[in-house]
Amino acid sequence: MAIPQEPVPLAGFTADSARAERDWEAKFRAIPDTALMRAYMERLSARPHHVGSAYDRDNAEWLLAKLREWGLDAHIENFDVLFPTPKERLLEMVAPEHFVAKIEEPTVAVDPTSGQHDEQLPTYNAYSIDGDVTGPLVYVNYGVPEDYETLDRQGVSVKGAIVIARYGGSWRGIKPKVAAEHGAIGCLIYSDPRDDGYAPGQTFPAGPYRPKDGVQRGSVMDMPVYPGDPLTPGVGATPEAKRLPLDQAVTLTKIPVMPISYADAQPLLAALEGRVAPVQWRGGLPITYRIGPGPAKVHLKLKFNWDQKKLYDVIARIPGAVYPDEWIIRGNHHDAWVNGAEDPISGTIAELEEARAMATLLKQGWKPKRTIIFCIWDGEEPGLLGSTEWAEEHAEELGRKAAVYINSDSNGRGFLGVEGSHSLEHFINAVARDIQDPESNVTVWKRAQSQRIAGEGRRMTPQADREEARTRPDLRIGALGSGSDYTAFLDHVGVASLDLGFGGEDGGGIYHSIYDDFYWFTHFSDTTFVYGRALAQTAGTAVMRLAGADLLPFEFHGLADTVHRYVDEVKKLAREKREEVVERNRQIDDGVFTALEDPRLKTVPPPKETVPPFLNCAPLENGLAELERTAHDFDQAAAHAAANGGSALAHAELKDVNDRLVVVERAFLSSEGLPNRPWFQHQIYAPGFYTGYGVKTLPAVRESIEQKQWKLADEQIVRVGKVLEDAGAAIEGAADALKQATK
Amino acid sequence: MAIPQEPVPLAGFTADSARAERDWEAKFRAIPDTALMRAYMERLSARPHHVGSAYDRDNAEWLLAKLREWGLDAHIENFDVLFPTPKERLLEMVAPEHFVAKIEEPTVAVDPTSGQHDEQLPTYNAYSIDGDVTGPLVYVNYGVPEDYETLDRQGVSVKGAIVIARYGGSWRGIKPKVAAEHGAIGCLIYSDPRDDGYAPGQTFPAGPYRPKDGVQRGSVMDMPVYPGDPLTPGVGATPEAKRLPLDQAVTLTKIPVMPISYADAQPLLAALEGRVAPVQWRGGLPITYRIGPGPAKVHLKLKFNWDQKKLYDVIARIPGAVYPDEWIIRGNHHDAWVNGAEDPISGTIAELEEARAMATLLKQGWKPKRTIIFCIWDGEEPGLLGSTEWAEEHAEELGRKAAVYINSDSNGRGFLGVEGSHSLEHFINAVARDIQDPESNVTVWKRAQSQRIAGEGRRMTPQADREEARTRPDLRIGALGSGSDYTAFLDHVGVASLDLGFGGEDGGGIYHSIYDDFYWFTHFSDTTFVYGRALAQTAGTAVMRLAGADLLPFEFHGLADTVHRYVDEVKKLAREKREEVVERNRQIDDGVFTALEDPRLKTVPPPKETVPPFLNCAPLENGLAELERTAHDFDQAAAHAAANGGSALAHAELKDVNDRLVVVERAFLSSEGLPNRPWFQHQIYAPGFYTGYGVKTLPAVRESIEQKQWKLADEQIVRVGKVLEDAGAAIEGAADALKQATK
Repeated sequence: MAIPQEPVPLAGFTADSARAERDWEAKFRAIPDTALMRAYMERLSARPHHVGSAYDRDNAEWLLAKLREWGLDAHIENFDVLFPTPKERLLEMVAPEHFVAKIEEPTVAVDPTSGQHDEQLPTYNAYSIDGDVTGPLVYVNYGVPEDYETLDRQGVSVKGAIVIARYGGSWRGIKPKVAAEHGAIGCLIYSDPRDDGYAPGQTFPAGPYRPKDGVQRGSVMDMPVYPGDPLTPGVGATPEAKRLPLDQAVTLTKIPVMPISYADAQPLLAALEGRVAPVQWRGGLPITYRIGPGPAKVHLKLKFNWDQKKLYDVIARIPGAVYPDEWIIRGNHHDAWVNGAEDPISGTIAELEEARAMATLLKQGWKPKRTIIFCIWDGEEPGLLGSTEWAEEHAEELGRKAAVYINSDSNGRGFLGVEGSHSLEHFINAVARDIQDPESNVTVWKRAQSQRIAGEGRRMTPQADREEARTRPDLRIGALGSGSDYTAFLDHVGVASLDLGFGGEDGGGIYHSIYDDFYWFTHFSDTTFVYGRALAQTAGTAVMRLAGADLLPFEFHGLADTVHRYVDEVKKLAREKREEVVERNRQIDDGVFTALEDPRLKTVPPPKETVPPFLNCAPLENGLAELERTAHDFDQAAAHAAANGGSALAHAELKDVNDRLVVVERAFLSSEGLPNRPWFQHQIYAPGFYTGYGVKTLPAVRESIEQKQWKLADEQIVRVGKVLEDAGAAIEGAADALKQATK
Repeated sequence: MAIPQEPVPLAGFTADSARAERDWEAKFRAIPDTALMRAYMERLSARPHHVGSAYDRDNAEWLLAKLREWGLDAHIENFDVLFPTPKERLLEMVAPEHFVAKIEEPTVAVDPTSGQHDEQLPTYNAYSIDGDVTGPLVYVNYGVPEDYETLDRQGVSVKGAIVIARYGGSWRGIKPKVAAEHGAIGCLIYSDPRDDGYAPGQTFPAGPYRPKDGVQRGSVMDMPVYPGDPLTPGVGATPEAKRLPLDQAVTLTKIPVMPISYADAQPLLAALEGRVAPVQWRGGLPITYRIGPGPAKVHLKLKFNWDQKKLYDVIARIPGAVYPDEWIIRGNHHDAWVNGAEDPISGTIAELEEARAMATLLKQGWKPKRTIIFCIWDGEEPGLLGSTEWAEEHAEELGRKAAVYINSDSNGRGFLGVEGSHSLEHFINAVARDIQDPESNVTVWKRAQSQRIAGEGRRMTPQADREEARTRPDLRIGALGSGSDYTAFLDHVGVASLDLGFGGEDGGGIYHSIYDDFYWFTHFSDTTFVYGRALAQTAGTAVMRLAGADLLPFEFHGLADTVHRYVDEVKKLAREKREEVVERNRQIDDGVFTALEDPRLKTVPPPKETVPPFLNCAPLENGLAELERTAHDFDQAAAHAAANGGSALAHAELKDVNDRLVVVERAFLSSEGLPNRPWFQHQIYAPGFYTGYGVKTLPAVRESIEQKQWKLADEQIVRVGKVLEDAGAAIEGAADALKQATK
């Protein structure tokens, strides 16, 4: 499918304004330059540039200078945040034999920046507490709650033990959190070669995958409680902000935790005895994975500098010509763990080219109706610091003005991935239909659709999903959990958000290591930067179209359709949880577990549980019905307005409608937030309390059920049902205003 | 569930005869002695005892002496069969560097028999042809047909190459067969440590799993065409039998093939380049699994002695007191690849204790109505030689007299596994309810049921299967493919058969290596021989009950129910095959494959295919309807006969009914056999042409569909439908005779 010659109508535009918009967009998409992107990456990733480093500030000032050189109104906004760095790191096995972990990533001769050891942050997990612990080792697989259920069935406790978990299966910060909940005194996290080492491909520098000494750094802050500076929850970390004392910062870990390489992990794992790990727990090391506890006994000692560091958020603004108080915000971070060519510079350079291209268009007479704000965040890696503090600091103004936030982060080669607010699903599908894929003769939309039809590997996609991919007007987009800078915008302030990026043809194992650098990226990833250009074209087109529309192009039918699925899912989840307990109790009563006992293996049958009650889901269903009714109402009004080349739109006074649309997403917030984590206010989307990055939709309800808190679930169903009704009312208000304006 | 105090009625017995039967069975089950079984194993596995070895003959003569010592009428029956042994074996990598494979299994100090190198067969695959080939190496995963489809999609051909496949995914003989069909010139088969090496557990001698130099010997004869002596298909390999010249023996491989250890495989696999193997293809070696071809180039040279060797089948007979011409046959082999403590002696010793126990009962006055024949086969390992030649030699008599064949082979610790003719499903379930599990407080039936209810690992059994396991009167038994000595009885002669054994708690990796010996078995498997005793109790009870029944206890309702499922399966398969082609063609037409192409990876889209026709399944359904109707008819007649304590049976003349029942299974044969493999005559069960051991039910129809031979499928549906009708007629004949006898 080639890009259509005859443009289809643009939602939110009249025939005339659409023609002008398409012209500007076409000019825009011709500007991003792969050679410049390559040069930016080389510059920005030339030295380690983590929070607090000289080169982090240097990069920010260079970015500022570039934006200003292009004629944009830019400035740097600073915050002062807690950012611990290692003072002492020791990991040794003290029994059955002595082994001291290397915890160093060596220089690779062909890779010029890998030897910048003086500036590199050591391998560590930020926001681990200090500790000096010794205990028997226990292998806990991914270290997620269900792994501890498996351990329970085998009579293995981690109380007083140091656990070793492999990366994967959850966001890393979940592992020490769950380990501490089960009584562990320390936590190691290692990169298993089966996941991103030699199993998926050759290791660096022969190939893109993790070499034996490579370590994944990363934050272990308890971000599902709140992200951003641990000392200033809910407010910007300005010099004058009131700060918590360190010992009241609940997002620090409860036990010391350190990431290690598979070269360091192998002797520890090989020294474990006890039960052989279940098949699903086994990784790619040439050993028998066993669980312990012991006889391996390890000593972990960690001490950190608990200093405050300055953040450098780079902000540029293009004022809107018609609706200056409606903001379209575009963001990507610039800080890295080390040199960070992939994470985040591959995304940063796309945003930079968008800014340059729009600056160019401004000089040619382009006048966006709405204000566009480019944000290049600092401090994303330790805990979404720069974006969170900025959003908290400007929360009141954002609440009034922010229409959409568009994020990107690491970018690679392959397929367009989109996650975000479902009120933007239709919009972003339309954008994707206008972007040419650089590797094939089709649009990025068609390529993504082809992938959904074909499925992965030999397994065909189920027929229902194939048919949906073929016949549904829009490809479904995923919901946002966490893991990048959209979090505060969507979950705390309620700004409709999108996260964009290409990937799927760009495997590797250098994530958060010293090898994520210019050499690696230009040898193994988007080496010609054509997908960097495609990202700039996609995100930039989206920003321009949102900023240029007469009527903000939200659509609520797809949103209601998706929320309907979520409601069905939580109903099913509640039913299944109930059936599971009934069935397990029955098996216990029938002696099934007793009959299956193997006298040579210690096993502990599961305990009998109280059968969960049936939940009253009616409030959720009533709220959903309201959402569906009002979505239909608004979409009909929008269709009426769009008829006849949008002639009704052309003469309408749309400010009131647009102002109402800006804040519809805010109606999904609840000021008291989610149970036990009030910072997270969105009632449709949240990162999971026990998944970290992975999204939980209808989180208050879903997580209450998952955690078997039936009374809470009943309460949350009522609350969330009310939120759906409120959102319906907000949509209805916009529909009425639109009918009024275009009648 | 304890064993019921009040015995339930025994099918085929009157109240009186059941009481007597139960008394004898109880006496029988008290006799098998674990200390004797341990002593038998120590003796029989003391030295290597493969076909043609001195100790193979010595064992046979010892077995004969034992049987005679107990007072049984026993003899040895000999056959002369082709059995190649290695004269020259060489495997070397000639590029990119030189490496010579060790192909030796070293002595293990603690294991006394592992050092008997003078008597051990070298590591090799029997019935590989001679060869001296050099070519680039290609990794083909399991080497089954779908693996070659994956290679096709990646543009990799094995033409002129030597393939390396890992054990698993099919019977080993399929690997060289499929490789040769695709143009390969040689084949290596290695044991991956993920499957039975260090991944599932510690390696021998620290644990039961395969050490790095351990090799799985085994036959690669094309047994799905015909098993037994390659030179005498269809007839017993007596001295006077007409023999094919060697070059007309179609069951020899087409290319040379050799098994190797993972220590020998690792350098070869590590030297491969080309595409990284798909996730499912990756094993447990600490390397990147890549496909090739090359640059690894290997030289494989194999030369064999193509000698004939003498087989020693040990046969003992207990004549029937009432129906001497109705035979209940019990078999297990005695030959091994090396010392073979597990395979087969763990099963042989159970059969031996059954024979001793029955010999004891005979002296106490027990008089089985039917003739019992104990067979202790030679030559199972190379190709089911001893049982096949014996069954071929006695085919005519077996066809008239053999009622049931009960087989066992290796036995271990855990759960009773049963496969067999579904006319015996109800019968064997009843037996299993009378056997006490030695590890738990329940019967082996209840333990097997518990396993089906609980499922394996964390995944719960699907609800429908749980409910079936709870509410269906009998646990379903699996169908027989191949891999042990029941094959000729069931598939060639049409004798209703069962294969019994315990397992599931006894992992290991010594299969067909020198480490399968007394040391290994008594350290890691059924170390106290209590499951050996349970096997003797189960199989012996079955033999006695079959031999003692007034009316042979076949039941046809479960059989018809199972065939119904098979018919549904092939209908579904045909539909899915059709839909798959329609869908794939549509994706090709829609440009899905083109859109998904990664320019850095060579891929070849699948070719468009002619859409398969709809098949007329009515003949199959009509045949099935006849089977269901007559099964119901017989079971009603049997229920009538069993009413009032079987009073009608007590006075009936049942010889005609029993004679008819003996041959019902024969009605499922078709004299022309399966397409392209006339030796296999059974139309319900067969080993798969491309799976080897794995069963294909309704094989003529199912395999035609799988192989996309639509015309053949249409023809076979008609033929198999007719067979079902014929079987129905045979059952109806038995039903009428039973009604007549008990009216």
